[in-house]
Amino acid sequence: MKTRAAVATKAGAPLSIETVDLDGPRAGEVLVELKATGICHTDEFTRSGADPEGIFPAILGHEGAGIVVDVGSGVTTLKKGDHVIPLYTPECRQCKSCLSRKTNLCTAIRATQGKGLMPDGSSRFKLNGEPVYHYMGCSTFSNFTVLPEIALAKIREDAPFDKVCYIGCGVTTGIGAVINTAKVEAGANVVVFGLGGIGLNVIQGARLVGANKIIGVDINPSRKEMAEKFGMTHFVNPKEVGGDLVARLVALTDGGADYSFECVGSVELMRQALECCHRGWGVSVIIGVAGSGQEIKTRPFQLVTGRIWKGTAFGGARGRTDVPKIVDWYMEGKIEIDPLITHVMPLDDINKGFDLMHEGKSIRAVVTY
Amino acid sequence: MKTRAAVATKAGAPLSIETVDLDGPRAGEVLVELKATGICHTDEFTRSGADPEGIFPAILGHEGAGIVVDVGSGVTTLKKGDHVIPLYTPECRQCKSCLSRKTNLCTAIRATQGKGLMPDGSSRFKLNGEPVYHYMGCSTFSNFTVLPEIALAKIREDAPFDKVCYIGCGVTTGIGAVINTAKVEAGANVVVFGLGGIGLNVIQGARLVGANKIIGVDINPSRKEMAEKFGMTHFVNPKEVGGDLVARLVALTDGGADYSFECVGSVELMRQALECCHRGWGVSVIIGVAGSGQEIKTRPFQLVTGRIWKGTAFGGARGRTDVPKIVDWYMEGKIEIDPLITHVMPLDDINKGFDLMHEGKSIRAVVTY
Repeated sequence: MKTRAAVATKAGAPLSIETVDLDGPRAGEVLVELKATGICHTDEFTRSGADPEGIFPAILGHEGAGIVVDVGSGVTTLKKGDHVIPLYTPECRQCKSCLSRKTNLCTAIRATQGKGLMPDGSSRFKLNGEPVYHYMGCSTFSNFTVLPEIALAKIREDAPFDKVCYIGCGVTTGIGAVINTAKVEAGANVVVFGLGGIGLNVIQGARLVGANKIIGVDINPSRKEMAEKFGMTHFVNPKEVGGDLVARLVALTDGGADYSFECVGSVELMRQALECCHRGWGVSVIIGVAGSGQEIKTRPFQLVTGRIWKGTAFGGARGRTDVPKIVDWYMEGKIEIDPLITHVMPLDDINKGFDLMHEGKSIRAVVTY
Repeated sequence: MKTRAAVATKAGAPLSIETVDLDGPRAGEVLVELKATGICHTDEFTRSGADPEGIFPAILGHEGAGIVVDVGSGVTTLKKGDHVIPLYTPECRQCKSCLSRKTNLCTAIRATQGKGLMPDGSSRFKLNGEPVYHYMGCSTFSNFTVLPEIALAKIREDAPFDKVCYIGCGVTTGIGAVINTAKVEAGANVVVFGLGGIGLNVIQGARLVGANKIIGVDINPSRKEMAEKFGMTHFVNPKEVGGDLVARLVALTDGGADYSFECVGSVELMRQALECCHRGWGVSVIIGVAGSGQEIKTRPFQLVTGRIWKGTAFGGARGRTDVPKIVDWYMEGKIEIDPLITHVMPLDDINKGFDLMHEGKSIRAVVTY
């Protein structure tokens, strides 16, 4: 079949709107009609060429929502008409990781996914007869896409696609980091570095679990108002702190953060996030993706005196199990998404969505098909 | 009163056996007659001048056992004749840390202890009329010493001093890192870097909790036999590994260690210990003390993909609560100490104990009074 898609033809180039060929689903695969997709910093990380593992040409996008159109042989848990969210972290429920009860990082299709291919080692997309690669197993910048059954979360049918697509990455990553990875408890003091699409969701996750002080750190003062709506209790602008930011945060939290989250991808901020944690028990969680080859550093004394350094991918969420719950939370009003979707546009304007991200004007721009 | 003590007169000098003046216990303090003390790498770290916070002249030693001789006013939990182990990590049971239920790092007397002083800001030791500093709040290289009540664990009276003194640091640090900090579970695969006085106790801690593979890493092949007696199942000598040590350890553990422990104090080993952990859940615990100004480094990807970096001090043990239990475990034969005490000597020969440590000939040298 044919489908319209935004193709990343080469590193650094704007996306090109094309009509591409899409093969139907093979065994264990599902054809999905995307209804909406968010534009995430990770897409830009790859589009720009900063991602050392980026492969081109590819159809980017990993934060979508849509409807099942067709299923391949052997697919038992999904049928035509089901509403779904694609999962860049699948959940096979059979691999060592899924069975460990300790991680969400399913390894069932990791090798091929990393190469931009479906589990059988081939691509379903072609442009002018040449293969176009899949991206993060999702490729939601295509109106139609094919995914493995294990990489789709079935969600309720009354959830609006143009909002819950964001649960496919940013919402789940931020809230999941709080509840799955850090396991923040009521009354804890939390520091969040970076008040973008992830950080704001960390903030509402912290509010959800009853955190005490929720301190946001950002150099962009325009983020303050939105963050306060999501539960931030204190705003710290590093540009306005006279002296040491870490000391300021330790003072604000009466000895240090119980939990801190780095949502930017800066190794310098990752260090500050660790070092502003409370001696004895503070836990710092890395969410942001750092540039190629960059390293985090600290004195081991920081850890020997009780701070814990962790990271999270997809908020520690098991996609097929947890994503439908988060959709329920949104529909029940336990969490907010609508104010975070600051811009909506058709696929033809997708490059404008990237521009808005660069200008710091959008929290989330969403493409609707 | 007068007491014999080994005095560290200046950084790098051998200890000098002297008769020093010792003031009696003040309010909340206890006078202890040491019966035995171990010689630990941390003493050498300070004696050598490598410790940036080292203060001289001082009476080193922090791994002792003895008998209460006198108590100051207000002391309620100890009396003359009680057998005790000094605690460089006290347990006041009243500070924010003790009440947190999350850490053993009591802060009640931290400020003065770090300055080599008793909680009232003065020293009890004098040599030729000049103050001599306390060390780690213990100074067990003196036949008699004064400690705060909160820095003494009361132990059973049938435990031999020349063995259980080792519980004052090395045994508790190693076993505690396994059971308190890492919380290793039965069936886990464990990698231990460094098979000295700490590493061997990590190994027997791992055996105690039913670990599966217990892999020891050391460049000294003479450690192999003892480590096997303590529960090591596989020995890896980095000098004999053709190629990458981390890859070798990952292969040996079928994907990576569930838990790893750095017991040397090398920031390079700390990185290897983290990176040999299993994707998704491996926990690496830093026990060793690195040199001044040294930093640990890794790519944040290691954490984002689920590895956790922690550290431990005194094995996460609350001294007054946990040390008596570990003494019981020794007396009941649940853990072994005797083979680790490789050398015993009088105070006059204490410098020989340091020589044996440097030569790699001793696991633990103990001074008996």
